Amino acid sequence: MKIEEMTSEEFKNVVLADPIVFVSVGATEAHAAHLPLNTDSVQPEAMCEALAKRFHGLLAPPLRYGQHSSTKNMPGTISLSFDTLRSLIRDILNSLADNGLKKMVVISGHAGSAHMIGLKLGAEEVVSRRGVRVMLLTDYDIAYHFPLEIEGDGHAGLIETSRMMALAPQLVQGAKKVGKFIDPQFMILPNPEANYPDGFVGNAPKATAELGREVNEFILERLTQMIEGNFGEGI
Amino acid sequence: MKIEEMTSEEFKNVVLADPIVFVSVGATEAHAAHLPLNTDSVQPEAMCEALAKRFHGLLAPPLRYGQHSSTKNMPGTISLSFDTLRSLIRDILNSLADNGLKKMVVISGHAGSAHMIGLKLGAEEVVSRRGVRVMLLTDYDIAYHFPLEIEGDGHAGLIETSRMMALAPQLVQGAKKVGKFIDPQFMILPNPEANYPDGFVGNAPKATAELGREVNEFILERLTQMIEGNFGEGI
Amino acid sequence: MKIEEMTSEEFKNVVLADPIVFVSVGATEAHAAHLPLNTDSVQPEAMCEALAKRFHGLLAPPLRYGQHSSTKNMPGTISLSFDTLRSLIRDILNSLADNGLKKMVVISGHAGSAHMIGLKLGAEEVVSRRGVRVMLLTDYDIAYHFPLEIEGDGHAGLIETSRMMALAPQLVQGAKKVGKFIDPQFMILPNPEANYPDGFVGNAPKATAELGREVNEFILERLTQMIEGNFGEGI
Amino acid sequence: MKIEEMTSEEFKNVVLADPIVFVSVGATEAHAAHLPLNTDSVQPEAMCEALAKRFHGLLAPPLRYGQHSSTKNMPGTISLSFDTLRSLIRDILNSLADNGLKKMVVISGHAGSAHMIGLKLGAEEVVSRRGVRVMLLTDYDIAYHFPLEIEGDGHAGLIETSRMMALAPQLVQGAKKVGKFIDPQFMILPNPEANYPDGFVGNAPKATAELGREVNEFILERLTQMIEGNFGEGI
Amino acid sequence: MKIEEMTSEEFKNVVLADPIVFVSVGATEAHAAHLPLNTDSVQPEAMCEALAKRFHGLLAPPLRYGQHSSTKNMPGTISLSFDTLRSLIRDILNSLADNGLKKMVVISGHAGSAHMIGLKLGAEEVVSRRGVRVMLLTDYDIAYHFPLEIEGDGHAGLIETSRMMALAPQLVQGAKKVGKFIDPQFMILPNPEANYPDGFVGNAPKATAELGREVNEFILERLTQMIEGNFGEGI
Amino acid sequence: MKIEEMTSEEFKNVVLADPIVFVSVGATEAHAAHLPLNTDSVQPEAMCEALAKRFHGLLAPPLRYGQHSSTKNMPGTISLSFDTLRSLIRDILNSLADNGLKKMVVISGHAGSAHMIGLKLGAEEVVSRRGVRVMLLTDYDIAYHFPLEIEGDGHAGLIETSRMMALAPQLVQGAKKVGKFIDPQFMILPNPEANYPDGFVGNAPKATAELGREVNEFILERLTQMIEGNFGEGI
Repeated sequence: MKIEEMTSEEFKNVVLADPIVFVSVGATEAHAAHLPLNTDSVQPEAMCEALAKRFHGLLAPPLRYGQHSSTKNMPGTISLSFDTLRSLIRDILNSLADNGLKKMVVISGHAGSAHMIGLKLGAEEVVSRRGVRVMLLTDYDIAYHFPLEIEGDGHAGLIETSRMMALAPQLVQGAKKVGKFIDPQFMILPNPEANYPDGFVGNAPKATAELGREVNEFILERLTQMIEGNFGEGI
Repeated sequence: MKIEEMTSEEFKNVVLADPIVFVSVGATEAHAAHLPLNTDSVQPEAMCEALAKRFHGLLAPPLRYGQHSSTKNMPGTISLSFDTLRSLIRDILNSLADNGLKKMVVISGHAGSAHMIGLKLGAEEVVSRRGVRVMLLTDYDIAYHFPLEIEGDGHAGLIETSRMMALAPQLVQGAKKVGKFIDPQFMILPNPEANYPDGFVGNAPKATAELGREVNEFILERLTQMIEGNFGEGI
Repeated sequence: MKIEEMTSEEFKNVVLADPIVFVSVGATEAHAAHLPLNTDSVQPEAMCEALAKRFHGLLAPPLRYGQHSSTKNMPGTISLSFDTLRSLIRDILNSLADNGLKKMVVISGHAGSAHMIGLKLGAEEVVSRRGVRVMLLTDYDIAYHFPLEIEGDGHAGLIETSRMMALAPQLVQGAKKVGKFIDPQFMILPNPEANYPDGFVGNAPKATAELGREVNEFILERLTQMIEGNFGEGI
Repeated sequence: MKIEEMTSEEFKNVVLADPIVFVSVGATEAHAAHLPLNTDSVQPEAMCEALAKRFHGLLAPPLRYGQHSSTKNMPGTISLSFDTLRSLIRDILNSLADNGLKKMVVISGHAGSAHMIGLKLGAEEVVSRRGVRVMLLTDYDIAYHFPLEIEGDGHAGLIETSRMMALAPQLVQGAKKVGKFIDPQFMILPNPEANYPDGFVGNAPKATAELGREVNEFILERLTQMIEGNFGEGI
Repeated sequence: MKIEEMTSEEFKNVVLADPIVFVSVGATEAHAAHLPLNTDSVQPEAMCEALAKRFHGLLAPPLRYGQHSSTKNMPGTISLSFDTLRSLIRDILNSLADNGLKKMVVISGHAGSAHMIGLKLGAEEVVSRRGVRVMLLTDYDIAYHFPLEIEGDGHAGLIETSRMMALAPQLVQGAKKVGKFIDPQFMILPNPEANYPDGFVGNAPKATAELGREVNEFILERLTQMIEGNFGEGI
Repeated sequence: MKIEEMTSEEFKNVVLADPIVFVSVGATEAHAAHLPLNTDSVQPEAMCEALAKRFHGLLAPPLRYGQHSSTKNMPGTISLSFDTLRSLIRDILNSLADNGLKKMVVISGHAGSAHMIGLKLGAEEVVSRRGVRVMLLTDYDIAYHFPLEIEGDGHAGLIETSRMMALAPQLVQGAKKVGKFIDPQFMILPNPEANYPDGFVGNAPKATAELGREVNEFILERLTQMIEGNFGEGI
């Protein structure tokens, strides 16, 4: 299942079955004082692994660096430039296409808008030139549709903290207050971290592993349906 | 020790001690029928981990994609373009420098000459602009100095197979013959894999975990001395 | 007020008062059978003109080309590449900064996500290097907050048609049905126009000039407040 | 006639007749104390409009920014970089070709040599890849062949001032002396504006609207003949 | 005098006197059936050599490749892309500046307009960043001012053939007719060589070595004066 | 034989015989106090000339600039950037392919690893897109296999000095000591020249023209065999 652990020949044989390949795009990004820097890697890797199992798919080697704007000046954020990220995903998908793979699902843990557009532009190049089929999303495109009574959740907030408590409890520390977000009113800021005075947004102290498991399952269910719809049900 | 598992604050505090950061550059590359595609990731990650321990250093999130020439058409090789790899390492080292790190050791498992130059050019930009100190090598720069009686060892050959038997025996299968290399006589080939009729080079059937351990230790010893020389002994 | 109509000397004198410069980013894009191709130019130019009056600001020469994804294959869409758009806005803002302007408001009529990120990345370069202050938005960031009872409005839909009826009634033709949108389920499509079977999204037949005037005024009011907040009230 | 004011469908139908599309390339550039910054936009837009009428052609949305060298440091000049201008015209012509247009006439008001080469390189890419036919010139390629008794006319000089008096008299102020040009003797200057001590070159005080009308008519006549020769007489 | 033939130390000492460095930009380009492909290299190299003698200057290693448009499809033309040429001259001038040289004269034998702009843009970057002084021209900027009674001279025509007869008679063959030029009427042509049905332009059969010597001397005299004016007379 | 000295028509006829074209890549680089800056140009030009004679091949105009790392800060080194060199060789080989040449041998006098990779990447693009056959090497790939009793020879050392004594004795001065090399221990250095305290490496005082002739002949013999093997013996 993990491409990395196969030999060249094993991989070649597995590709003959036309499997879906899952590409996890992680990040190394400040997530306040209560979540680890790999928060955006842990989540999509878990999603990809679960989906690869359900669909007898392949797991590409994970990426653990993304492009960051709001948190770029916070300690521990390691950011690629926009152009590097775009080239990176383009090259990887191209190389997967060279290897005969035709169905690709890219899941990003980081949901930054420039980061997502970088991935989208890279993927579009491959789709238009190679005729492969690519599905691209951040799992937060779905997570934020989970029905919650609390509003204003965001970066390292209630949902993200809960998900991490379910997936990697040993890396999670307790959050003690609600994280505020200051709206930049459309200003392009040289110091965007100033809008995150607490380093996160939302009611993280209310997070529970139980909620995290529910959200993760919600994401997996939605993705399972979509993937079946997009690539054919019997896969 | 792993940057990924720290919180932003923990990371910030650790950086104050001016530690060495170790960046492992892996690859996803065909390594014949007896070694897994992550062969070039397993080795530098093990070296970096051991060195980070010895030097109380930091481990950056590992990269698992490189640039490939000779094996680019073999099943399972996933290759970045030269320019992407150069930008990737430049961005990561730049971002580490933004975070206050000043001592960097980059170890690549893949030793391809274009791949290494991509890393070198990316690192040079950061060194010349940021005043940080960067050490860059492939562990095969050292491994091939290990005193052996057998000549003509290379890709997925005696040393590499032995090292993998020591580091990840569960991923290694037995090689049954000596791998030949056909010299391209300086021709730029569209199908360079033709020069590797067996997919590897060297006497892989003679490989042993014992030899692998010796080579790994040899590398670590040499690197320990060099790092002390380069960055100061007391670190 | 229009930079274009001033002489070099007049412009130089006006800049001494440190005015806000308004940059309208338009587009040439298919807007179904009932709206003209310059729909995304007419709107931000009207907004910029009104705001320049309120704030005694300057109007930069308008741009009338943007970057398009969903509608790129529809007749009449003229699209710049992402990189061209990013360079274009960067060069213009840089040149405005060279001219001594320090307060810039960029309003885009087109709201495509890649288009907006192209503008954002271009603007970020100028902000970080030149120390100017830049506000960037599409007026649809605000328009879609206008309180409506109808859901699912979008491209060339109820709000956009209404705004055009208020601003350029001679260019608007009657829409006869509700425009449907087919959700692509996160697939990167080579033919994204297939998701717009009617070429637009929303209840365009319900559009009225009256509603358009209300939305336009709503946008102007919100922007006026934000600009005062961002650049200082007395301007 | 104006692409901008058509709907997608109207445009699609008009393209079936294989019309010539006229692309006006303007500029925002210092033109001494007597001409407005849009001098290089007003002129080609007027020429394109008149020609589009004569040939039942299409008018693309006008560009109002160009690349500037000599005047780049004068107040009011807003300059694109060479590469941006080249990409911009390439993308627009490409997109026009995507839309089925095959005959293109690009007229630039600005005649700077680097600016013109930027346009030429962009157009060449489209011609060689797409098989469309493109005619590219600055109207000053023709204007300076108008038979005059006065020598040494140039930027914002006798001809340009006259043309503007004919086209946009409300924007023209009286010039009071002859503008001198200091020959840079092939030096690449960091401050090329020093060679334009008056900001313009030529006997601008002699300018008349009458002369301007004659020159404009002269240009239109010549262009009409050339266009007929280039694209076929009956169009 | 030739940088190439000095040792590092000799060069270092010579630079202390702040000499002018002459950079000859040649080309490999079809010059009809009567002139060799290196016509555009022979001429500027001769000019640079003579000037270096007069001014006790340095000769940089010559370039023998340029960028070509009109002749790009003729046998024997070897063309760089525009971007390569621009980078090439930028890098060389930058490196000369790194070496302490501050006065540079670049003479191109090829006079193509895109070629000259490529050189100009490359040189401008160095001038604006490094504070060196650069003079850039094609010797045809001067040659075509030589007073002749014959009009319509051009590529490989009367003047160029004459100059080559003076400089490299052994490489010149007799031209037998007048070369015609077909005006492209501002069309961007995929096959621009069609406008040179004879491969050259002008009355080449009238060429004489005597005329060539006169033109060469004319160029040198003019350049000597200009260089004295630009860099100071006593040099 | 020299492309430069042919006319367009002569060249066209010669190409019909499908000759090998030899491209000499030189450099302008500090070579200690005893060798001239064109050391890396003289050698490959001599090799290419001799081989062109043996194989009735063509000589492309020589390049005399390369990319330099270790010696970049030494007086007299004129370095191209990596990207410029890569584009330069790509454009030249592409243009040779446009001219119908199908067999190319590129010999570089400079052997720097980044320099060679720049040439390799440029050549690979042409090979993969154009179907031509390219052989690429530095003559030092062979020279260092010449059987010598002395170890540790390198830049401007015993072999290089000897070769220059054989090829251009008038440009060689006597070296007086052994040049030392300080191993950088894989550090990326901002001042790599510090590792060459003498500016060269090896026992240069032992150099003789006789040894130089032997090495040159050794290189030519080996290359002759390889070229016959690579391109067919009867050529």
